[in-house]
Amino acid sequence: MEEITSLHNSLVKETSKLQQKKYRDLQDKFLLEGYKSIYEAFNAGIEIEYIFVEKEKQEKYSFFAGNIILTNEGVLKKISTTESAPEAVGVARQKHFSASDFCGAGKVVLLENIKDLGNLGTILRTCAAFGVDGVLLYGECADLYNPKCVRSSVGNLWKIPVAEVKNLDIIKNNFSDYQRVATLPLADNGLKNFTPKDKILIMFGSEADGLTPELVEFSNASVKIEMHGGVESLNLSVACGVVLYSVLQA
Amino acid sequence: MEEITSLHNSLVKETSKLQQKKYRDLQDKFLLEGYKSIYEAFNAGIEIEYIFVEKEKQEKYSFFAGNIILTNEGVLKKISTTESAPEAVGVARQKHFSASDFCGAGKVVLLENIKDLGNLGTILRTCAAFGVDGVLLYGECADLYNPKCVRSSVGNLWKIPVAEVKNLDIIKNNFSDYQRVATLPLADNGLKNFTPKDKILIMFGSEADGLTPELVEFSNASVKIEMHGGVESLNLSVACGVVLYSVLQA
Repeated sequence: MEEITSLHNSLVKETSKLQQKKYRDLQDKFLLEGYKSIYEAFNAGIEIEYIFVEKEKQEKYSFFAGNIILTNEGVLKKISTTESAPEAVGVARQKHFSASDFCGAGKVVLLENIKDLGNLGTILRTCAAFGVDGVLLYGECADLYNPKCVRSSVGNLWKIPVAEVKNLDIIKNNFSDYQRVATLPLADNGLKNFTPKDKILIMFGSEADGLTPELVEFSNASVKIEMHGGVESLNLSVACGVVLYSVLQA
Repeated sequence: MEEITSLHNSLVKETSKLQQKKYRDLQDKFLLEGYKSIYEAFNAGIEIEYIFVEKEKQEKYSFFAGNIILTNEGVLKKISTTESAPEAVGVARQKHFSASDFCGAGKVVLLENIKDLGNLGTILRTCAAFGVDGVLLYGECADLYNPKCVRSSVGNLWKIPVAEVKNLDIIKNNFSDYQRVATLPLADNGLKNFTPKDKILIMFGSEADGLTPELVEFSNASVKIEMHGGVESLNLSVACGVVLYSVLQA
C-alpha cells in the first residue's frame, strides 16, 4: 500500500485544490471527508478514485478495494476543509442528472436560489428521509459538491438524483402534468387542508426572498405552514422538513 | 444626541466585551445586532440600555426613546460579531426564567445538551411559530445569549420564556402531571399515531447522542418520525420542526 506523508507531494496538492469550486468543476471530482461520507458514498455506488487514510485507521476502510493511500494528520489537515483533520479523505467523481431522469417519478422537490450550503445539505438529507424521488436546483443555488454541503447532508447526498436546471422551459416540459405546489407564507391553504396528488412537484424559494414570480405563475397549487401570530417565518430547512413530512409522510 | 466614533472610547470597549460569555454573565447583558433584533426585542419588552446606530440610519430607530449613540462603520464592526458590520448594535438586559414560571402551561419543550448555537436559535424560532409556552434548557446547552444564537432565532428569542435547569428534580417537581414525551429514533409509535394530551412536555436530546437515559426513564410516552429506509436521522432543528408541527399544530 502506498504511503504519502509529504505536504509537497503532487497528489496531495492536486487533492487540496478540490476545496475550490473551480477545480471541482474542471476535474468533475469532489472531496469526501471522514468515514461516514466515504462509507455512504461507496454504498451508494459513487465512483471513488482514491482515499487518503490515517495509517492507524486503515482496517476500517477494508471495504474499499480501490486505491488506499496511507498518510498522516498533517496531510489530512491540508486536503480537508474541517477545523480538525478527519481520519480519511476520499476523492470521488461527481454524478450528474438532468430533469428528464426523474420526470416520471411521483415526488419531486424544486429548490430555487438556495445559496446557504448548510441549508442545501440539510434539505437533501430531509428529502432522502421522506422519500423524495428527485431534486431540481433552479436558479443560483450553492454548489452541491462544496464540502460543507456534502457534510451537512450527512451521507445522504447520493441517495437521490439532483439535477441543476438553469432554464424554466426544461421544467415546464418535464413537469407540466404534475401538481405544482408553491410554498408561500401567504397562501390561502394551510398544510392541514392540503391534498397531495400522485405526481407532485413541491417548490421552495430562498429564505430571504421566497419563490420568484415566474415559479409562482408556473404553480397550480399553493400551501403555507400554519403559524402562531407574530412569527413571520421559519428557517428554510425547518420549513422544508415540516412541508415534506406533512405532504409526503403524514 | 451623543456621537462616538473612536474605537478607543470606553463604552465601545465595554460593549465589545459582551461578545464573550464571561462578560455577558458578569454584566447580565447581551448584544442585539441589526435592526430586526433590536426592533423585535424592543417590542417584546426587553430592556434595552443603549443603541449604537450608523449616523445615516438614525431615523429608523426613532421608535426607541432611550439612549441612541450615533457612530460609524468602524465602531459597529468592532462591537459586532457578524462578518460585515450591522447598521446598529444594541445592548440589552438578559431575562431569566425558572421552570416554575410556566409549569402550569400546556405546551412545554425540553432541550437537553444542545451545544450548536445555530440549532438552539433555530429551535427557539420554531417553538415561537408553533405556540410553545416555555422552553427548558437542561444539561450542557449552548449560551442562549451568544450573538449567533440571538441571530439564528431571528427576533424570536424573546417571544417565549426559556429557563436553564441543571437539576432533574426541578423538572420532576414541576412537570410530573404532564404527558412527558421522549423523541427517540427507535420509538414504537410514529407521529401519525401519536395523541397529545392537554399538558405536554416534549423532550429532545442532542443530535449526536439523543436523550440521556435519565430523561428517557422520566418520560411516560415516546414518539419517532417515520422515515424511509437507509436514512438514520434528521438534522435536529428539522426534527424539532416536524415533531412540534405534527403534535401542536396539525
